Amino acid sequence: MKNRYEIRLSGSGGQGMITAGIILAEAAGVYDGKNVVQSQSYGPEARGGASKAEVIISDKEIFYPKATAIDILLAMTQEAWEKYSSDLNPDAVAIVDSWYVKDLDKPGVISLPLSQKAREEVGLEIIANVIALAAIAQITGVVSREALERSLLSRVPKGTEEKNRQALEIGFRLGKEAKK
Amino acid sequence: MKNRYEIRLSGSGGQGMITAGIILAEAAGVYDGKNVVQSQSYGPEARGGASKAEVIISDKEIFYPKATAIDILLAMTQEAWEKYSSDLNPDAVAIVDSWYVKDLDKPGVISLPLSQKAREEVGLEIIANVIALAAIAQITGVVSREALERSLLSRVPKGTEEKNRQALEIGFRLGKEAKK
Repeated sequence: MKNRYEIRLSGSGGQGMITAGIILAEAAGVYDGKNVVQSQSYGPEARGGASKAEVIISDKEIFYPKATAIDILLAMTQEAWEKYSSDLNPDAVAIVDSWYVKDLDKPGVISLPLSQKAREEVGLEIIANVIALAAIAQITGVVSREALERSLLSRVPKGTEEKNRQALEIGFRLGKEAKK
Repeated sequence: MKNRYEIRLSGSGGQGMITAGIILAEAAGVYDGKNVVQSQSYGPEARGGASKAEVIISDKEIFYPKATAIDILLAMTQEAWEKYSSDLNPDAVAIVDSWYVKDLDKPGVISLPLSQKAREEVGLEIIANVIALAAIAQITGVVSREALERSLLSRVPKGTEEKNRQALEIGFRLGKEAKK
């Protein structure tokens, strides 16, 4: 494991990337005991359909909280991929949604049916962000499965726990298959 | 108006400071057209009861997204006040909750019945964060009332719009009275 991970979660405005960033940050910071800074930008340069949240996770204190070279990128739409995939580390893990991101200009990208499984298995497309977090945890180990589950269940609206647990399981499964 | 404002919203874990930070950031960034970076930290140094969210609002691009000297501080608890009021600008606006923050070691602090009005007038203490945002908008002008209302209503759960509008009005009123 590296000392410092920079993670960028990107998609369109309604896909819950900010919520996903906060769930991941709380998982790593509160439950895994890491130092975490989570941020999002708004404004002219952040306009348009694409939206992103960034999480920096470190074993040490974080003095420079701006992401500089992304280690883990999630892109839920083609626009997000094109806008936010330029500053990846050479050994970065890039995960995209196979339904919305068709055109990949880099090799080695992991394409997963995140939104498709959310629709077909959970019946709720918005929960694709949870499936994505679980896949990221499984593939990269940047956060523990237990911490992710605790953070998620402390934040979701009452009555949706079961669907969220189901989304986690789907994401862990997709992550395992991707690592094979 | 200055070019760059650094705002810190602090309180205990359950008081909705992160949500307030995101509502304020979206109001200024999406609806007022400013450049905004919103962030929160987790981890060993962020442990304990106190929680904070920071928002930087600027007319220009934000190259250094770490808060350095706070222009506007909200402290909803005594612990948050003690932990997060040390790096204020000399001319900072400091707003505290009059119910939970009793012991002030600086002059000129604005003490408002945020949680008390939330309980007594709205019947919902958690909505004190919205009252606080409205008071901040009214007192400092860092975000427009219209932008704050639009951002808030786009984020709150369905069915709670009326209580949130009521909380905004209470906050605007408290802000006006504080400025007299």
